[in-house]
Amino acid sequence: MPDERSARHGLDEAVHLEPVGDGLFTGHTSRKYWNFVGPFGGITAATALNAILQRPDRLGDPLSLTVNFMAPIKEGAFTVETKVLRSNRSTQHWSVQLGQEGNAEGALAAMAVFALRRETWGLREAAPPQVPPPEACKPFTPRLEILWPQMYEMRYARGRFGIENPDSVTHAWLSDVPPRPLDFLSLTAICDAFFPRIFLRRPQMAPIATVSLNIYFHVDATELAREGTHPVLCAAKAQVFNKGYYDQEGQVWGQDGKLLATTQQVAWYKE
Amino acid sequence: MPDERSARHGLDEAVHLEPVGDGLFTGHTSRKYWNFVGPFGGITAATALNAILQRPDRLGDPLSLTVNFMAPIKEGAFTVETKVLRSNRSTQHWSVQLGQEGNAEGALAAMAVFALRRETWGLREAAPPQVPPPEACKPFTPRLEILWPQMYEMRYARGRFGIENPDSVTHAWLSDVPPRPLDFLSLTAICDAFFPRIFLRRPQMAPIATVSLNIYFHVDATELAREGTHPVLCAAKAQVFNKGYYDQEGQVWGQDGKLLATTQQVAWYKE
Repeated sequence: MPDERSARHGLDEAVHLEPVGDGLFTGHTSRKYWNFVGPFGGITAATALNAILQRPDRLGDPLSLTVNFMAPIKEGAFTVETKVLRSNRSTQHWSVQLGQEGNAEGALAAMAVFALRRETWGLREAAPPQVPPPEACKPFTPRLEILWPQMYEMRYARGRFGIENPDSVTHAWLSDVPPRPLDFLSLTAICDAFFPRIFLRRPQMAPIATVSLNIYFHVDATELAREGTHPVLCAAKAQVFNKGYYDQEGQVWGQDGKLLATTQQVAWYKE
Repeated sequence: MPDERSARHGLDEAVHLEPVGDGLFTGHTSRKYWNFVGPFGGITAATALNAILQRPDRLGDPLSLTVNFMAPIKEGAFTVETKVLRSNRSTQHWSVQLGQEGNAEGALAAMAVFALRRETWGLREAAPPQVPPPEACKPFTPRLEILWPQMYEMRYARGRFGIENPDSVTHAWLSDVPPRPLDFLSLTAICDAFFPRIFLRRPQMAPIATVSLNIYFHVDATELAREGTHPVLCAAKAQVFNKGYYDQEGQVWGQDGKLLATTQQVAWYKE
């Protein structure tokens, strides 16, 4: 009989939450998604979203998610607190806090909007970058002492990590390792899986940290499920690095040129 | 003796708050910034930011602001509640809620990060659009029955409101009416003052509403003060309109090609 736990994808293990009542959940950090000194921010953002997805009273699918990273998360257990701030006819507003050591607050604060979508007039204005197919792009082999990049297959079509590129634009195919059908959890984590833009302009390593991450989801669960395990195409760039903070904006493209999510973040950097 | 109240700029009147203790403030909607059925979202976002700016314990300058619009705000008094979620050495995390009729919650939920900036290596990667100077661009004369556009001088260099443009990209010079030195309050309001992208692709009027607005500030107060009353150059575009929601992203440029703020929003639309 297979061990159910080991059969579960690393991402599902990492974002797993146990309900403990009153919108509270407990979880545990995952070594598989470990960054330098704490969990990979994308997996923490996905965990915050997962807490809302677990709520039986949630309405529709994620539309927007903003995660503010307030303090480092230590290896071990954490608590996630979810609150409905407002339920409207087609939108629902949430707040999420994540804390450790008996304090449900303190490490992460998030807000999310969930929404019921409906068939309407629509228009796709942005177009995906023209890049070779995944199999024609060389996989990136991370050499760093961080673990989370090993949970992704990353095939870069534009931009090289750790050299002084002429700009910070990257185009890369990303998929979970092992392959896992795309959902809002993996899509959220992917939105933080682009390499920090600063390392595309200044090759030397320096301390950096995402301060705030914002994601807009542009498809509903039915559309997203059609992506299956196909790699997504990620485009990202920075606009400005000034006085210790820089921005990053990204797009996550699905098959047939479908824009699945757009994302922005502001990160702190030390010279 | 001049009446001090009437000498105050309409924006300062609109965002004015009275402290009532414990991080709570009261304010009143302004007719000058009225939209169709409630205050212009930009002025409400600026009011939320102003509540933090009024707090004597705030650290540094605004770095990021996310405002989720949860319910319409009625004409009249409102309450703003501010909370420090976490204070670090160089960043400070805030939550803000705005409500009416004795309830401090319910209409708006916001999160903000304030930060101390320091001199570091920096790089401006994005470049402002090349457009004629403000005086060479025709002022836009709003004909709608909404009041807030009259609080801005808008000179459009690209993109025309209310026709079917080939794309949703606009370039416009914006300044407060009457002129007012730029600060974080006016910059916040300007980040929501680009015309809704949908009206650049579908000329017919239809109900729309901003659901979530995100702003990253890329300069500190000293840099911002140098802008004075010079018009800012605003670039904006949408990426996708799908199933009742669309995004908008924008840049606000200052003099000498300085990127003052980048902003994103997701809005609801009805067919």
